[in-house]
Amino acid sequence: MLMDRPLIFITNDDSYYSKGIKLLIDIASSFGDVVVLAPLTQQSGKSHSITISEPLRFHKMEEREGFIGYACWGTPVDCVKIAMDIILRERKPSLLLSGINHGSNASINTIYSGTMAAVFEGCLENIPSIGFSVECHDENADFSYCTSSIKKIVKEVLDNGLDRNVCLNVNFPDKEIKGLKVAHQAKAYWNETFVERKDPMGGTYYWLSGKFIPDEKEKNADFNVLRQGYGSITPMQVDFTAYNVLENYKKRFE
Amino acid sequence: MLMDRPLIFITNDDSYYSKGIKLLIDIASSFGDVVVLAPLTQQSGKSHSITISEPLRFHKMEEREGFIGYACWGTPVDCVKIAMDIILRERKPSLLLSGINHGSNASINTIYSGTMAAVFEGCLENIPSIGFSVECHDENADFSYCTSSIKKIVKEVLDNGLDRNVCLNVNFPDKEIKGLKVAHQAKAYWNETFVERKDPMGGTYYWLSGKFIPDEKEKNADFNVLRQGYGSITPMQVDFTAYNVLENYKKRFE
Repeated sequence: MLMDRPLIFITNDDSYYSKGIKLLIDIASSFGDVVVLAPLTQQSGKSHSITISEPLRFHKMEEREGFIGYACWGTPVDCVKIAMDIILRERKPSLLLSGINHGSNASINTIYSGTMAAVFEGCLENIPSIGFSVECHDENADFSYCTSSIKKIVKEVLDNGLDRNVCLNVNFPDKEIKGLKVAHQAKAYWNETFVERKDPMGGTYYWLSGKFIPDEKEKNADFNVLRQGYGSITPMQVDFTAYNVLENYKKRFE
Repeated sequence: MLMDRPLIFITNDDSYYSKGIKLLIDIASSFGDVVVLAPLTQQSGKSHSITISEPLRFHKMEEREGFIGYACWGTPVDCVKIAMDIILRERKPSLLLSGINHGSNASINTIYSGTMAAVFEGCLENIPSIGFSVECHDENADFSYCTSSIKKIVKEVLDNGLDRNVCLNVNFPDKEIKGLKVAHQAKAYWNETFVERKDPMGGTYYWLSGKFIPDEKEKNADFNVLRQGYGSITPMQVDFTAYNVLENYKKRFE
């Protein structure tokens, strides 16, 4: 490791073996030294979950000039915690990148996302953190058309940082990017339809399935920015407080 | 079920068998009919995770006048989704309650919490939703001193609802409650320290462990309200957007 280059930590939720993380490693390597700790298995939909009732293990997978790759049995947030407390204890990274996720994390998908959970955890650890996702679930998709947009964002954050307690949720449309727009999180909901099946013993089981329903007209919302062919950059924070109702709720509940 | 009483749906993350959910069921039963679907096993720290790579099952556990209890193999958010799409498809609940959690969900604990994830999911489904937690991890603790505070909050929400996209994160101090204060989410972080052990084959494994570090001086923050002996009520929303930096980030990234 060259200690005079910035250190970039990378994780994701699609696993160490996904195609999306490989492109992110290639891009990050042009800016600095790279350390990866990614889940061994697919962790989509794991949100901000942490492993507390089972032990965790991690293994070194690869090492070459300017790069060390580890994989872990846990969730994306476990990966960030292990990296900060064990692997990178002596050298805090300048940047945390998560992704590139196969599937959009715009709108309320943020809350289900393991990719963005890792970003939030980095943000809580006071590291400038960015999640990248593409509106495409194909695990073999070629995301190289995103390279110049990702480089632009990474360079800007390495040069000028992010505000304390702020991280970025970046989403790209499938295939082509007209430009970048800063956006807010779009309102939406999922309409669930569980698929009912019978096991060979006659027992009933269900598969979670659903349809994403956008519920936002504002053109500067992230989901709508993607519809216009732009990449969306949503600055985010880990604060759920509904500040606009605080005063009114004091009258009701105190 | 008496169709003229409000229907209250209850879940949690400490499992169907926890003591906290039993008190919540007792309290809710004085207001309406109650349906429970709670996880079969402890789901603390599971955050907003959903089960997508494994099937789900649920079973009826109990039924009596005004009460039906189910338990499920999944996470708290799975419970809400199954309840809304399968069990309560014909009768939408007037209220969703989650808890009473054994352990505080004030401050950034919200993002790790399965209790509050169920509340957020109810909020996304447009149901008035409240999470209750107590600053005490003892699974045999007597939470009955919280009864009158919970009744007051439940009555207010049943009578007057909550704003669309707003839910409540209610936390109580251990042992005694001086009164209720509406609060915002306190800033804080966790300082991880993984405990390293060897298995009988000599392999290394780690247990996640850590210390909660409050990082907020404002006396109206939820964590500080609890320190003063009051119950905290934090109105929350599922919107991570850092609105205060949006304009500045447009100049930097567009």
